[in-house]
Amino acid sequence: MVDTQDQGPYYRISDTKNADLLRERQSATFDVEELTQFMFAGPNNYFNVNIRRQITRQAYAHPIHKTHLPLEYLDSDEHYSVVVRKSLAGVKEAERLNITNKKYRDWFLNIFSGGKFAFFLHTSMFIHTLETLASDEQKEKFLPLARSFQIIGTYAQTELGHGSNLQRLETEAIFDRTTDSFILNMPTLTATKFWPGALGRSSNYVLLMAQLYAPDRHHPCGLQMFFVQIRDLKTHQPLPGVEVGEISTRFSHEAGDNGYLRLTNVRIPRNQMLTKLAYVDQQGSFHRLADPRLLYGAMLTTRVNLCAFFALLLARAVTIAVRYSAVRRQGQTPSGKETLILDYPLQQDKLVPCIASTYAFFYSFMKLENLRAQILDGDIILFDRLAELHAVSSGLKAYSSGIAERFSQICRVACGGHGYLIASGIKPVNNMLDAGCTYEGDNAVLFQQTARFLIKAIQKDDDGGDEMNIGSSIAYLFSAKPAPATIVDLDDYCRLFECRSQMLVKSISNRLMESSSSSSTPHDIFLKNSIELVHVAKSYIETFVLRALYDGVRKALQHNSLALVFEQLFHVFAIHTLRNQAADFIRLKLLTAEQVYQLETYSLPDMYNRLRPNLVTLVDGFDFHDNELNSCLGRYDGQVYEALMERARLNPTNQHKVHPIWTSIKQNAMSKL
Amino acid sequence: MVDTQDQGPYYRISDTKNADLLRERQSATFDVEELTQFMFAGPNNYFNVNIRRQITRQAYAHPIHKTHLPLEYLDSDEHYSVVVRKSLAGVKEAERLNITNKKYRDWFLNIFSGGKFAFFLHTSMFIHTLETLASDEQKEKFLPLARSFQIIGTYAQTELGHGSNLQRLETEAIFDRTTDSFILNMPTLTATKFWPGALGRSSNYVLLMAQLYAPDRHHPCGLQMFFVQIRDLKTHQPLPGVEVGEISTRFSHEAGDNGYLRLTNVRIPRNQMLTKLAYVDQQGSFHRLADPRLLYGAMLTTRVNLCAFFALLLARAVTIAVRYSAVRRQGQTPSGKETLILDYPLQQDKLVPCIASTYAFFYSFMKLENLRAQILDGDIILFDRLAELHAVSSGLKAYSSGIAERFSQICRVACGGHGYLIASGIKPVNNMLDAGCTYEGDNAVLFQQTARFLIKAIQKDDDGGDEMNIGSSIAYLFSAKPAPATIVDLDDYCRLFECRSQMLVKSISNRLMESSSSSSTPHDIFLKNSIELVHVAKSYIETFVLRALYDGVRKALQHNSLALVFEQLFHVFAIHTLRNQAADFIRLKLLTAEQVYQLETYSLPDMYNRLRPNLVTLVDGFDFHDNELNSCLGRYDGQVYEALMERARLNPTNQHKVHPIWTSIKQNAMSKL
Repeated sequence: MVDTQDQGPYYRISDTKNADLLRERQSATFDVEELTQFMFAGPNNYFNVNIRRQITRQAYAHPIHKTHLPLEYLDSDEHYSVVVRKSLAGVKEAERLNITNKKYRDWFLNIFSGGKFAFFLHTSMFIHTLETLASDEQKEKFLPLARSFQIIGTYAQTELGHGSNLQRLETEAIFDRTTDSFILNMPTLTATKFWPGALGRSSNYVLLMAQLYAPDRHHPCGLQMFFVQIRDLKTHQPLPGVEVGEISTRFSHEAGDNGYLRLTNVRIPRNQMLTKLAYVDQQGSFHRLADPRLLYGAMLTTRVNLCAFFALLLARAVTIAVRYSAVRRQGQTPSGKETLILDYPLQQDKLVPCIASTYAFFYSFMKLENLRAQILDGDIILFDRLAELHAVSSGLKAYSSGIAERFSQICRVACGGHGYLIASGIKPVNNMLDAGCTYEGDNAVLFQQTARFLIKAIQKDDDGGDEMNIGSSIAYLFSAKPAPATIVDLDDYCRLFECRSQMLVKSISNRLMESSSSSSTPHDIFLKNSIELVHVAKSYIETFVLRALYDGVRKALQHNSLALVFEQLFHVFAIHTLRNQAADFIRLKLLTAEQVYQLETYSLPDMYNRLRPNLVTLVDGFDFHDNELNSCLGRYDGQVYEALMERARLNPTNQHKVHPIWTSIKQNAMSKL
Repeated sequence: MVDTQDQGPYYRISDTKNADLLRERQSATFDVEELTQFMFAGPNNYFNVNIRRQITRQAYAHPIHKTHLPLEYLDSDEHYSVVVRKSLAGVKEAERLNITNKKYRDWFLNIFSGGKFAFFLHTSMFIHTLETLASDEQKEKFLPLARSFQIIGTYAQTELGHGSNLQRLETEAIFDRTTDSFILNMPTLTATKFWPGALGRSSNYVLLMAQLYAPDRHHPCGLQMFFVQIRDLKTHQPLPGVEVGEISTRFSHEAGDNGYLRLTNVRIPRNQMLTKLAYVDQQGSFHRLADPRLLYGAMLTTRVNLCAFFALLLARAVTIAVRYSAVRRQGQTPSGKETLILDYPLQQDKLVPCIASTYAFFYSFMKLENLRAQILDGDIILFDRLAELHAVSSGLKAYSSGIAERFSQICRVACGGHGYLIASGIKPVNNMLDAGCTYEGDNAVLFQQTARFLIKAIQKDDDGGDEMNIGSSIAYLFSAKPAPATIVDLDDYCRLFECRSQMLVKSISNRLMESSSSSSTPHDIFLKNSIELVHVAKSYIETFVLRALYDGVRKALQHNSLALVFEQLFHVFAIHTLRNQAADFIRLKLLTAEQVYQLETYSLPDMYNRLRPNLVTLVDGFDFHDNELNSCLGRYDGQVYEALMERARLNPTNQHKVHPIWTSIKQNAMSKL
């Protein structure tokens, strides 16, 4: 699969059909391919754009993509069928093309199925959990079945009544010594497994998280993972004792097959509890084997990868909005010329901070991914730094989903009414980002975990401290370096943010310590200060993101044509973030109110002007294939109106010249005459 | 239709089945019915809650509501059919019940059709425009047909290429003297009418906005309105020269039947141009008859009513989120008790400002509605105050849709994963509010119109001024009253906001005037400052809203049990709004950074605590029927989990034990064995 021909850009400037958009591309001060290679290529670059292009071309070459209407026109059963068909075809095609590297295979399957790979939870969480939590014997037995798709599984954790609070899950597995098996039950309505993807209609196995009771009902042993068959492998019928189905309709997860599951007295053999961390012997005695923090590995990796996913989603939204803004005209000058909407300062104020933030999010993810590789790599885990990885990944997941949701909504509004069409490609992205604000950890909960880490770190240091913080993302908390008196270079912005974060962490930590001498419990004190603690966690993540972007700017220095543009993006991100948090900087005397006002009123629009010739090329650099964007507004060629009209005419309801309901109404009306 | 039995509340506290929710309702310090009557009843109250309850009960009593699954389970054609069937049934039922008052009839039809009345544009814009812009002769001819639903029409303005900029619409009507008719054409692709509701499959007539050319192609006479038949009245087939269909799929407007329309050489007689404002004589000469500002009437009234619509939508979202938060438990205290999520300060920080803002939006709407009644009432228009009505309604529409969109998203996230279900009832509300940010005037455009009004007003005053401003919403701009040194009572908050708004308007006005001596055109100067101008417009609207809420608090003083609660809501709204705009207040030296910090860190959570026993009752006071909320999470009785499970089991895909795609896959797999 090494063909460098396939690794070039999808489009050339000459593919642009819209004259305005063409002018934008010609006005750029740098070469788009240089940008793409700089951002997304290189030996250690997670995105590996050249391989990605090859895989993308291979995926879209398959004839199956021409066999159905745009997905928004399918009813929910058809939609599901198309997604399953494509997912299975993708698996076969990956085999045929011999794409064996796990990461590339996952990308291929994702691209092939239009971002809706039906067995995503099978190839990720299900197999990963087996690899992590199953004994060698269990792996030998289960993994080949899973890897060859002879069984299809998902990960059944969340229940109707409990999400974030795992300890309270109610599904139970009671050991039965007489039959050497576990009896599985959902003792309450709220114990019903609810939401797991691929559960409703697709999976025949689940990894079930349940409360273990052994040797009997009266001895709780905490949460364990069980390998449970729920459908017949030949007929796909639910097994006895199993009620399984799809939950009610979601926004934008139409084909995600989120399901519910109720088990009634379902029995599984004792060796189907995953036993790497703990096991139950024949007598029903419970034994721990390993550090239960091993469980975190999968969750942490998922959370890190989500940060890349959110950055990519936001990149899609802003690519569409910027390109459309370079085609759409609205309003006019006194001389009667219609204005390109990208020329409006208000439109720039929506989109340029969004472009800058997207670059910042890519760099933050790459910084986090480096941290992950240091701390957690397969079976190697640095337990003493796991807390930091947990804190940064939780905080960045919460921060980037929240900010990206907001920005993608701004992108949708920036496209006016047409942005509201599914065919805009933005509204679906906005809905996916919205979902990201509550799945894999509610954002408010995650920020509190980040805050806990910060408080612990600063209090540990006060207690005598240790040196483990040097080189970590919190090293600056312990620095005595003063705030810059004036902002001269980019590092001064970073220092400003670091000083703010440091002052906020110290002040809340002091407040917590003072309160701890009162009669309140630590739990109550934390709760009472939780609004501010979340704010402190955000300020730490903002600092992390700004510093990550700063590192990116420094790398760009080696590229003459890119260096200046990256500096400008940095200014935009820094000032935009700062203006939203102005009260902090002013109160902490890091900036005066007048300084903030000058920055946002003059420096920021000035940066918009400087970046103006490069806006389209900056989003082109994200290197999306038109099929990925799936957008009438964001097509590379700029043929926006043609695409909108074509998509409207494809609407299957238009095959009726007269909708059937009107035929029936007219007949009734006639018969009364 | 006067039956006071029907005018009582829909529910009693004893209907509550969830124990936690019951406790919330019992803890209230005031009577919910007193609140509802205070807010939504009274001789001049727009909402007339008692009539509304009667109409609502009548609407839901009809058996048609039991004939279909929840709408999210219907495919798009079925969905449309159900909505049309219900809408026609609603029209008949309103007739049978003799609901003749226009407002109540509109309410009834809206409630009857679950907020999706298929002929909303017919009964509002279409008929209203005929009433306003048709000559007496035309009215006599067309209105009886429209009012009796013999013809069904819509309002076709927006085109594929142009929305807000009406002057650039491209559809053309060329007078043809030889046949005494107009020839209608869409000369370009972008001239295609695109988006009008009820156009795709429902309407047989449209009011078409088009550029008139008379006496011939070379003489443009500007935009005029034409009465055009597009479908055969008997067969419902599109007429020759008419291409009409639905546009591609939208979020949440599934059955809105937004359509596109292309006309090719369609001829209509000369008397089908609406001629109240202007007409073309037999020779093709064009004559103006009346002030074209009459055109604004319908647009302004629509915009005013939207402010009520947005307040109601937000009220729905927050009702659901607060009730669910009083049922859902998550996390636990060290003693092992699960915490009600409404008890978390972070949850309160999401929801209490939202409750306060909802009340503020209701009062702002009522204040705006009073203004409208003074300035614009049927044919009576005070032209000299029309600009103010335009400015306030534009600004409030933009402000309330934007803020409510944001809050409804916060409500959705506050409900965790379940909030993402359509059955949450919140996500659909959020999508409707999102749509509201760009329809009937893009928010960014509307704010600029408000800003223009403010600048004109302040500059006129500087030029010598006049007294027309006394009693208007901008009177404070001309006041010399100083800012309060400390905040003692509620009026001090209002003064703070007024001073800020005044200072911002004056300062930007001065800047514009200074620039006007430069070489730039006024258009360019306005554009250059547009980001700040929008900010100034927002600060004016914030002041308007705060003052409206203040008036509400003063009214509540007559109700002992409500007075304190309204004061607390005022504090929450004022401080919440102020913290988001802190930089302004600090820079203008109206408050110090430390004051703002104290307010948000101590006063605000303190208010949350005081309001805590009343939160559920404050949303109960909005008085929604469960069918209106259409939410598993927000039901009055609190049976959340039962409802979620019931709705999931209703999912029609669950009637297959094995989804057909798997049957086909298994058969293929078998045949290979």
